Amino acid sequence: MIKIKTWGKLALVGLTAATLVACGGSEEKETAKVEKKAEVINWKMVTTWPKNFPGLGTGAENLAKSINEMSNGRINVKVYAAGELVPALEVFDAVSRGTAQMGHGAAYYWKGKAPAAQFFTAVPFGFTAQEINSWIHHGGGLKLWEEIYAPFNLIPMAAGNTGVQMGGWFNKEINSLEDFQGLKMRIPGLGGEVLKKVGGTPINLPGGEIFTSLQTGAIDATEWVGPYNDLAFGLYKAAKFYYYPGWHEPGSTMEALYNKEAFEALPKDLQLIVRAATRQANAEMLDEFTALNNSALQTLINEHNVTLKPFPDDVLSALKKASTETLEEVAAADPMSQKVYDSFKEFGAKVRAWHEVSERAYINARELE
Amino acid sequence: MIKIKTWGKLALVGLTAATLVACGGSEEKETAKVEKKAEVINWKMVTTWPKNFPGLGTGAENLAKSINEMSNGRINVKVYAAGELVPALEVFDAVSRGTAQMGHGAAYYWKGKAPAAQFFTAVPFGFTAQEINSWIHHGGGLKLWEEIYAPFNLIPMAAGNTGVQMGGWFNKEINSLEDFQGLKMRIPGLGGEVLKKVGGTPINLPGGEIFTSLQTGAIDATEWVGPYNDLAFGLYKAAKFYYYPGWHEPGSTMEALYNKEAFEALPKDLQLIVRAATRQANAEMLDEFTALNNSALQTLINEHNVTLKPFPDDVLSALKKASTETLEEVAAADPMSQKVYDSFKEFGAKVRAWHEVSERAYINARELE
Repeated sequence: MIKIKTWGKLALVGLTAATLVACGGSEEKETAKVEKKAEVINWKMVTTWPKNFPGLGTGAENLAKSINEMSNGRINVKVYAAGELVPALEVFDAVSRGTAQMGHGAAYYWKGKAPAAQFFTAVPFGFTAQEINSWIHHGGGLKLWEEIYAPFNLIPMAAGNTGVQMGGWFNKEINSLEDFQGLKMRIPGLGGEVLKKVGGTPINLPGGEIFTSLQTGAIDATEWVGPYNDLAFGLYKAAKFYYYPGWHEPGSTMEALYNKEAFEALPKDLQLIVRAATRQANAEMLDEFTALNNSALQTLINEHNVTLKPFPDDVLSALKKASTETLEEVAAADPMSQKVYDSFKEFGAKVRAWHEVSERAYINARELE
Repeated sequence: MIKIKTWGKLALVGLTAATLVACGGSEEKETAKVEKKAEVINWKMVTTWPKNFPGLGTGAENLAKSINEMSNGRINVKVYAAGELVPALEVFDAVSRGTAQMGHGAAYYWKGKAPAAQFFTAVPFGFTAQEINSWIHHGGGLKLWEEIYAPFNLIPMAAGNTGVQMGGWFNKEINSLEDFQGLKMRIPGLGGEVLKKVGGTPINLPGGEIFTSLQTGAIDATEWVGPYNDLAFGLYKAAKFYYYPGWHEPGSTMEALYNKEAFEALPKDLQLIVRAATRQANAEMLDEFTALNNSALQTLINEHNVTLKPFPDDVLSALKKASTETLEEVAAADPMSQKVYDSFKEFGAKVRAWHEVSERAYINARELE
């Protein structure tokens, strides 16, 4: 293709035939060089994150930087925070139609378009970070995820993980299942469905409205991410709080979305660079959250008087039962969700059996006196 | 530089006198082309793994393939199994002196040269895979690891993780600490030191001699990796065995070693490609082991009559106490080890506090009835 273009341009230069013959090689080179310069692939990355949002937003920024630098500038990705080019929840559509060539967000935001997508962020009482990564990359997960997104002209990849998210902030203690009765809690996705099953009222609010809603008492509780993000978000200032460990997002995967045509138009090496940069971002975010959550948690407890409490075992058991019912219902409502749920269950049974004698046995043995 | 040359030549295009110059340019281009061809960077990767060794050896192969493909052939890495170019335990020296430009193995193999290196593979009752990755990439670990290797002209990177390794294969049940008395067990590194403290006899054998030693009774027990590798290695055939969960290598990091001059001679984009390919390999191996260990474990139990047993809690407690003593001794013997141990302890206290309310709380809550 380059060659054809070259000859086309040479014809326009208007040189004599002899010159062409004599210098054809040289010209071809020149033009190839000029073309190479013109060939910088300018990509837009739209994200669901506020500007400079710690961990999630900065993870997207770092991914763009990696792609730009690893490609030596052949790809130039410019990142847009939520609302800068399109609103947060239009990222999926914007990349689908090619307004942007890539996006960064989380798959469960798109459950209205593809209910099965939510299995690829987090499932209540489902996979930990290590488990969901293994399912996606070695358990058939990615193939299913690609199948879900193909009709939308999109290619998904795992692009970050928060680890176990906290169960949330509550303005009262949760001592029994009855304490969930009528509880108005900001909790999106599958976790919200589970809360509804145990008598609560899930409320879906964008991040920017959480603080005020807590302060005015419009909601009694909220989940957000984990100590690192929750501290940065200042939630502890909104009321006196009890802070509980998590059950509903035990290893939330962030996603990079690529416009299928844009991705497939890349030469093979750039495709592999994009894939490796994304995989690197996926690992990097978990490493960051794992390192930074504890200091933030200590600050919340020691400087901001947040009370850390565990849910009682019978509450967790009831939430677990309600979670299984919720997943069964989601699966029954949609053939693709059923297919993904079957894979999730099969892989889940195996990986839990393995982690019973490895991760879990070890992490408990380590705490023995 | 490219830009200057290009415009310089374009200015001459079409002029008779300059045609010669332009044609000279052609010559120069050809030469540049030849040079470019000659510029393929041929690297050798020596490894500590037998040819086609599942997970660890194939992980090294995949890393080479990624570098080759992501660089579009600008780097060409050829992989050598243990013994093909240098013996397994000469990988460190071979890369240090530049016989090979990179290596793949595990840092604790080099404890004779740099005792502090062993903290970067696995520590008894130390970090899980998720924790060691976070320490290395976000807790100051990598900087220390680089400091240890700098005098050897080497740059280390994390390049794979097995997850929690099994505690090993025993020809009798371990019901109390007394059962370790006089037990001859193949167990290298810090785990071996700990075994010695509780009365056992650690024996260091290369992989190839384990099977026969078990069969003849020269050793009573061995650890290797985990079900996926142990099944492939056929250990279950050597005797009637009890198989125990692990404590001594709770998330073993494999390493890629780069010759410092070779790595630093790469242009920036290739350096970043090598780093991302290595980070990808690091994640990929853990995903693979996490996905494949369970089936192998089930095969061992159900088809090969291996008995899976937990160590009693008091045995684990004693091993943990002996582990801490061992680490204190290693640290006291060498200033660099002390520096690394201090970082390990500080990060460890924080990450365990966080995992107490996240990973551990969750993984236990998930198993509630």
